[in-house]
Amino acid sequence: MDKVLKIGIIGCGAIGKDHCRRIIETVPGATVVAVSDYVAAAADETAAKYGIKSYGNDCDGMIKDPEVEAVVITSIDPTHHDYVMKTLAEEKWCFCEKPLSQNAKDCEEIIRREQEIGKRLVQVGFMRHYDRGYAEMKRIIASGELGKPLIIKACHRNVSQGPGFKTENGVTNVAIHELDICRWLLDDEYEDVQCVKVRQSSNSDKGYDNPQVMLMRTKKGCFIDVEVQVADGYGYDIQCEVVCENGTVKLPDPYAVVCRSRPAGWDSVKPAESMPIMTDWKERFIEAYDIEFCKWVESVHAGKLTGPSSWDGYVACVAGDALNASRGTSQFLKVETMEKPEMYK
Amino acid sequence: MDKVLKIGIIGCGAIGKDHCRRIIETVPGATVVAVSDYVAAAADETAAKYGIKSYGNDCDGMIKDPEVEAVVITSIDPTHHDYVMKTLAEEKWCFCEKPLSQNAKDCEEIIRREQEIGKRLVQVGFMRHYDRGYAEMKRIIASGELGKPLIIKACHRNVSQGPGFKTENGVTNVAIHELDICRWLLDDEYEDVQCVKVRQSSNSDKGYDNPQVMLMRTKKGCFIDVEVQVADGYGYDIQCEVVCENGTVKLPDPYAVVCRSRPAGWDSVKPAESMPIMTDWKERFIEAYDIEFCKWVESVHAGKLTGPSSWDGYVACVAGDALNASRGTSQFLKVETMEKPEMYK
Amino acid sequence: MDKVLKIGIIGCGAIGKDHCRRIIETVPGATVVAVSDYVAAAADETAAKYGIKSYGNDCDGMIKDPEVEAVVITSIDPTHHDYVMKTLAEEKWCFCEKPLSQNAKDCEEIIRREQEIGKRLVQVGFMRHYDRGYAEMKRIIASGELGKPLIIKACHRNVSQGPGFKTENGVTNVAIHELDICRWLLDDEYEDVQCVKVRQSSNSDKGYDNPQVMLMRTKKGCFIDVEVQVADGYGYDIQCEVVCENGTVKLPDPYAVVCRSRPAGWDSVKPAESMPIMTDWKERFIEAYDIEFCKWVESVHAGKLTGPSSWDGYVACVAGDALNASRGTSQFLKVETMEKPEMYK
Amino acid sequence: MDKVLKIGIIGCGAIGKDHCRRIIETVPGATVVAVSDYVAAAADETAAKYGIKSYGNDCDGMIKDPEVEAVVITSIDPTHHDYVMKTLAEEKWCFCEKPLSQNAKDCEEIIRREQEIGKRLVQVGFMRHYDRGYAEMKRIIASGELGKPLIIKACHRNVSQGPGFKTENGVTNVAIHELDICRWLLDDEYEDVQCVKVRQSSNSDKGYDNPQVMLMRTKKGCFIDVEVQVADGYGYDIQCEVVCENGTVKLPDPYAVVCRSRPAGWDSVKPAESMPIMTDWKERFIEAYDIEFCKWVESVHAGKLTGPSSWDGYVACVAGDALNASRGTSQFLKVETMEKPEMYK
Ligand SMILES: [Mg+2]
Ligand SMILES: [Mg+2]
Ligand SMILES: [Mg+2]
Ligand SMILES: [Mg+2]
Repeated sequence: MDKVLKIGIIGCGAIGKDHCRRIIETVPGATVVAVSDYVAAAADETAAKYGIKSYGNDCDGMIKDPEVEAVVITSIDPTHHDYVMKTLAEEKWCFCEKPLSQNAKDCEEIIRREQEIGKRLVQVGFMRHYDRGYAEMKRIIASGELGKPLIIKACHRNVSQGPGFKTENGVTNVAIHELDICRWLLDDEYEDVQCVKVRQSSNSDKGYDNPQVMLMRTKKGCFIDVEVQVADGYGYDIQCEVVCENGTVKLPDPYAVVCRSRPAGWDSVKPAESMPIMTDWKERFIEAYDIEFCKWVESVHAGKLTGPSSWDGYVACVAGDALNASRGTSQFLKVETMEKPEMYK
Repeated sequence: MDKVLKIGIIGCGAIGKDHCRRIIETVPGATVVAVSDYVAAAADETAAKYGIKSYGNDCDGMIKDPEVEAVVITSIDPTHHDYVMKTLAEEKWCFCEKPLSQNAKDCEEIIRREQEIGKRLVQVGFMRHYDRGYAEMKRIIASGELGKPLIIKACHRNVSQGPGFKTENGVTNVAIHELDICRWLLDDEYEDVQCVKVRQSSNSDKGYDNPQVMLMRTKKGCFIDVEVQVADGYGYDIQCEVVCENGTVKLPDPYAVVCRSRPAGWDSVKPAESMPIMTDWKERFIEAYDIEFCKWVESVHAGKLTGPSSWDGYVACVAGDALNASRGTSQFLKVETMEKPEMYK
Repeated sequence: MDKVLKIGIIGCGAIGKDHCRRIIETVPGATVVAVSDYVAAAADETAAKYGIKSYGNDCDGMIKDPEVEAVVITSIDPTHHDYVMKTLAEEKWCFCEKPLSQNAKDCEEIIRREQEIGKRLVQVGFMRHYDRGYAEMKRIIASGELGKPLIIKACHRNVSQGPGFKTENGVTNVAIHELDICRWLLDDEYEDVQCVKVRQSSNSDKGYDNPQVMLMRTKKGCFIDVEVQVADGYGYDIQCEVVCENGTVKLPDPYAVVCRSRPAGWDSVKPAESMPIMTDWKERFIEAYDIEFCKWVESVHAGKLTGPSSWDGYVACVAGDALNASRGTSQFLKVETMEKPEMYK
Repeated sequence: MDKVLKIGIIGCGAIGKDHCRRIIETVPGATVVAVSDYVAAAADETAAKYGIKSYGNDCDGMIKDPEVEAVVITSIDPTHHDYVMKTLAEEKWCFCEKPLSQNAKDCEEIIRREQEIGKRLVQVGFMRHYDRGYAEMKRIIASGELGKPLIIKACHRNVSQGPGFKTENGVTNVAIHELDICRWLLDDEYEDVQCVKVRQSSNSDKGYDNPQVMLMRTKKGCFIDVEVQVADGYGYDIQCEVVCENGTVKLPDPYAVVCRSRPAGWDSVKPAESMPIMTDWKERFIEAYDIEFCKWVESVHAGKLTGPSSWDGYVACVAGDALNASRGTSQFLKVETMEKPEMYK
């Protein structure tokens, strides 16, 4: 491949380091030329490992470096909007991990900026679009072989959260993936939403709601029920079923060896056929991350982005705000967005 | 078995005839001594087949026949309440198919009458309590091994409805089984409910809503989502998953042979591993019906009913009314019942 | 049902008592009028429980009792042949648990006797013919929708054996069910067989081979591989897959609730989706036993047996002998039977 | 990555072109610098596509090119041995698609040559070692948690074969993957084998046997049954189950979306839960191919090969020859290999 996209990464935490390795070692047509981080030493360490340039904590300087053609933003959530805007100021390609911003107003600013430039430059890191299971579900739904989609039943269960996690984050940091993927599977937009408080797990006495149920209705009338567990469940378990007029289609569980046995502990444990469940979210979508970056680099080389857009980041944000606002009301609240710009259609 | 319970059946339609055969041929300790039906000829025909007495359309006479010790009511829904009350007037055992009555007030009358008699005499035909799958789910939930139950996700899909079916019947005749079984699985009562209109199937243009989604919340805060399809789907498909604090438990699909093949039509159809889905609801719970009657007769011989009670029939009725009232409101409505009499605790 | 078949049971051990209860309580058109057992007290106890006649250890007397119309033989294996012959001497119906006899010569004698009488009077207790899974497999194979059957892969795993169990019993008492069911599924007869010694389980140091593999080839060229485990495995697990020209068909696992969880022991055990496996063989085919007796009684009332015949009992015996003879030879041995009498075709 | 392994490819057919793309675009630390093919134009075309050197049909010249550090052999089977020997003459790294040679003698020559050089230089393309399912099975077996492995049941079904396919190729080109993977899973060597002719599919009247069954016994006594279908079945279907002392472990089916529906054709087709089966073998192990090359390049950079060796290619060849020799004998034939050189232990 002749052209190599030169990338700078902002944020050298776990995911930033992993994306750095991914781009350098496995993504064809792209490499990382510079890294930066709020903590200068983190950038220095990553840079040293791959023999590339460290900007230390001078993230703004790195964005302006003429050698940097594209910026990957994996810094902490509250900084995303600012770095996206600065990258757009340079009219460079920008790959931003979700969420695009902390609120709808900030997303709108990004959308307006892309309108002024007249070209999509931002892709949001909704990697599930690149998961083979979701992609096949979308293909089947779009083919019409099962008739129109009517209902989605999803769940997002995981095992633990970092310090500072709040009830609202169950929507904006966890269910945000479902907020995005349901629109994408249905090719539809949200009409109204309702976040329902349900019986709480006694395992999870940390000051935030767990579990929560999020109900969404779309413009075309589809009904969506998303169960969200953020802590102390049995594993990392992502389920999604779309009920259509003539049948249903279901996300498969990850590829896993099946055992039939009676495990050690012989006397108390009953024999079973069993299939392991993951506990770590990073494994579950590892292949999707790989494909996501390969496709992003391909589309950058082709000069036209095809992955999740600023609009997608914006809608997830608006729907999330409405869900959080509906909590405790026992009612559906409207999801009101600006007109969708031509560029994102 | 020494004692044989002598039963009279009201209603000789499809299910009445099947129960008659079941009791005579397969239920130990019980037999049918007389039948009656609104259409006298139907009763005569069934009676002739088994060499038993026909009361023609004199159902009231049959109830009073001193030889009849117990009455099984399988007549059309609007007649249930009246026949139950007449059976209770004789202080005889009464097995009534669901629904117990057409409204909450009528159920309350039955409950009051049982209170006066001072003994449970009525069992309602909620046969899912006797399905091996639901029974095992209840055992697991009650054992506490998965922690407290938090959420139920269920669906009830079937293929067609008779003439005169209305939107409201999707609740009172179809989802009524879920209204009953969810309370039973959770050992809990409903707090409020909401019936949600969702995107409609274009296959199903018959003047009633299809599908519908029913949301229920319990006193203990459990959240229940029941999808109901009443027509033109792919088959008869009953699903139920209970999400607990430490895991989930799921109703199995019926026992079915698995094929791996490419069916006739070879060129257009892709090869698949496949497991058949039923289209006829009668097959699905056939074994539960058998067990239900055996257990009912056993409990009658023991002098103390243990199956679904008048209270269970009443609560299903009250919840169904609230669901129907909530349609179109986008809100949860309270489910308000009388105090639960000691007898049913 | 007007006619009631009056049955005498020889053998009041676990299975004899269970069949007694089954016939009295659940099989329509039949009842037990007398019982006998090598241990007189066992017969007396069972008789007392149901208020029927005990012949004590006078089994021969019971067979001759004019009131006894049919004899069910559930005594120990070596006595089967003698009781069948004595029942045939009375020209009464005879239901004999497997095996029909201890060797081929004895089976031939039974077959010759039935020929003389000119009518099938004996049914062998191969209850798997009445299992819904096997029955559906047979229906699919016979329909031809998957093309001709070519290969069967089966396994029979169980947990423990009584005292005195020998390597040969792995064929004649355990795999005998597969010897029967494979012929039935394929509608074919055995050509040659080979019993292969394989790596032995170190859990199972009791003096008999475990596991063993039995290979059979049929007249039509089908190949059959049956794995037999008789002790110390994880559970009672019966598997069967028939490979046909255009696809395969597989016996389903028993109906079982599916859990997704991390069980107690939390830290060391990985979360899994799991489905329980049985440990007790009696549960697995309980429904088949019920159906088997109902069908047997029906066919007796109709005057013509349709279930597994003396011929079926004979062929299983001949094939079993050849398998045992082949052990250690690394060769296929011929299975040579007499001509199949018209009566069994 | 600093070091880039410079590879020359012999053979620019389907798989050669795919490996070329794989190495250039997705394998870090390696690139293709030259290609050659028996048909010069094929080499020229591939070379032009990637802007690399074409040796036309001068494969020998390409092997000697000092810039070429490693040779990937994807030419037709009969040429493998010669190109491996020529690559070893240069003491260069060699990646050879299966089979390593056409007979055991030729494999031995390769093994002797590696002994003289004193270092493993050859890796054979048994890519299943890199399949996540097989790798997890091996991990579980090796962990001992299920006890010792006792029996393997495998099948290899595919849809069609190219012209010139013979019965023997069912062993040497198809089952060769199972011949390799079973040894690897069990960490054991073959003792004797038997190829059994079974009932033939009438769909497959092309002059070669289909299906065939291959039986193998190992030094440790494990028994292996491999069903091989090479044509006209329903799809590409790879199954493998290892029966251990305390349980079994089973290769999962590929990740696939599950539908519950009644497909078009509505009236004749029964509704089903279904999971698609592949028809193209290239899809099934696509990820394994990617991982295989990444790991090979990694191990070359580390200076010590870890993947399938000449010995592995040799044993598969010897076992395949014995299987073919046993056809029609109804007997197990010994598998006799030379002593295993230290280098491969
Ligand atoms: Mg790269
Ligand atoms: Mg009865
Ligand atoms: Mg009976
Ligand atoms: Mg490369």
